Amino acid sequence: MSYEELVFDVFAKNCTSRPVMDTVAGRWGILSMAALLDGTHRFNELRRRVDGVSEKMLSQTLHALERDGLVLRTVQSTIPPRVEYSLTDAGRRIATKLLELIELVEAEMPGIAVAQARYDDSR
Amino acid sequence: MSYEELVFDVFAKNCTSRPVMDTVAGRWGILSMAALLDGTHRFNELRRRVDGVSEKMLSQTLHALERDGLVLRTVQSTIPPRVEYSLTDAGRRIATKLLELIELVEAEMPGIAVAQARYDDSR
Repeated sequence: MSYEELVFDVFAKNCTSRPVMDTVAGRWGILSMAALLDGTHRFNELRRRVDGVSEKMLSQTLHALERDGLVLRTVQSTIPPRVEYSLTDAGRRIATKLLELIELVEAEMPGIAVAQARYDDSR
Repeated sequence: MSYEELVFDVFAKNCTSRPVMDTVAGRWGILSMAALLDGTHRFNELRRRVDGVSEKMLSQTLHALERDGLVLRTVQSTIPPRVEYSLTDAGRRIATKLLELIELVEAEMPGIAVAQARYDDSR
């Protein structure tokens, strides 16, 4: 059976789409992929852009995205080696959707902040 | 200063949009909100739909979404009380985007599964 014949359903507990969704929709996955929509970045550039991420978490996130075929890691054989990260075509499609989500949530934040204040006052 | 004048930037470490993004884009936030796009659900209906979620995690997620003004919790004064959850207008806008993300990731899964197998074979 080829992968094309499988049905993926993120609502099903054991579907392999669940860990992929965790990676791309996790805090650091969303921000790393959205940052890479600008273009190729080196590790430390990404780390500055994704404010607050630890070296370990960024490294784990990029490895998971590379394994999923969403981020491409290229090593140039300079001294020292230059390691760069970019989006694959599939990565770009998902990152575009994640950026739409970011922009939507940021646009909804004034209303959300009002709701949070009202909720906290009522407790 | 009103909330409308604030600039929200999820890339900034201390922005209040970050915990909101964690809630809506977390595994249980995505699935709960997408499930509520169908319409109003009771707690146990949601728990069946969001396969694998614990009572505690679903309860925490729904409370956080209620605080953010994205999910409405209504209690009907029957005996026993009937508690129902539905999306607010803002919740529906965000849930629609989350469903697009789910559908995109599910559609990309065949390619992702190939990439994962290739990556694992190469280690």
